[in-house]
Amino acid sequence: MPKLDLSQIPFKGGSTYPGKLAQAMARRSSQRLGDAGGLTQYGVNMVRLEPGAASSLRHYHMQQDEFVIVTQGTCTLIDDDGEHTMQPGDCATFPAGDANGHHLVNKSDAPALFLVVGTRTETETGHYSDLDMKVTMDATGFKFTRKDGSPLTAEQIGE
Amino acid sequence: MPKLDLSQIPFKGGSTYPGKLAQAMARRSSQRLGDAGGLTQYGVNMVRLEPGAASSLRHYHMQQDEFVIVTQGTCTLIDDDGEHTMQPGDCATFPAGDANGHHLVNKSDAPALFLVVGTRTETETGHYSDLDMKVTMDATGFKFTRKDGSPLTAEQIGE
Repeated sequence: MPKLDLSQIPFKGGSTYPGKLAQAMARRSSQRLGDAGGLTQYGVNMVRLEPGAASSLRHYHMQQDEFVIVTQGTCTLIDDDGEHTMQPGDCATFPAGDANGHHLVNKSDAPALFLVVGTRTETETGHYSDLDMKVTMDATGFKFTRKDGSPLTAEQIGE
Repeated sequence: MPKLDLSQIPFKGGSTYPGKLAQAMARRSSQRLGDAGGLTQYGVNMVRLEPGAASSLRHYHMQQDEFVIVTQGTCTLIDDDGEHTMQPGDCATFPAGDANGHHLVNKSDAPALFLVVGTRTETETGHYSDLDMKVTMDATGFKFTRKDGSPLTAEQIGE
């Protein structure tokens, strides 16, 4: 039925980032609400950040609109303009193609949760603001490279 | 900047429903968060229901995924399966083409708020579960008709 049974949707951790970059995603987990409810046109995830955790490496999307609303605790939105404290009910939008890299970090001493919505597209490019890295996505999956398209270095990924 | 200044985004009432059908939308208002933040691929609205208000006439979408999360108060989700109480944090999904008409009603004595996300598409058809009515949308706007495409009757819209 349309109302989701949240108790049946697990919070899962893990990361698609290569090598040691995945370590930045420790203490972050998420519930894939949209998938659980049969949505396909956009993803909707409830993200839980333990103290010290980050939502992602700081990035922006070229093709996908992104929206967040904090639902519990305190998050710090970090973007090109600095740090912005976000409390429950606070919202932020990241239009596709806006080259303002962003992520949310939990700098508090209690868990924080936010809901994030992102369009599903057949292809996508994401740029990482603080690293020489981009990600391209197509039907074959994700591919992380340096910004010029060359492979990530051993120094970057620790392999 | 990405973080929205919610104090600058008005809650607006009103309805696109024709004639007396618009009366069903009294005591409902919404903040157009996605539009305010420059999103175009989906709409994100914070909807406020005063006691007795409804989110919409009970309906379903053929082309647009819909997602809701209650953020304050208590809403009653009414769909083909009956009534489902929704408290803050409760979520529901309505995949495009799922012919389960739904709306949220505030049966409590305090205001309720929910966030709703809906895909933006170039065309759309919506079906109303409790009325002989559908809506079609294209570049020229909305058009409400009977389910067979004929004009709504004077009895239906009170004109």
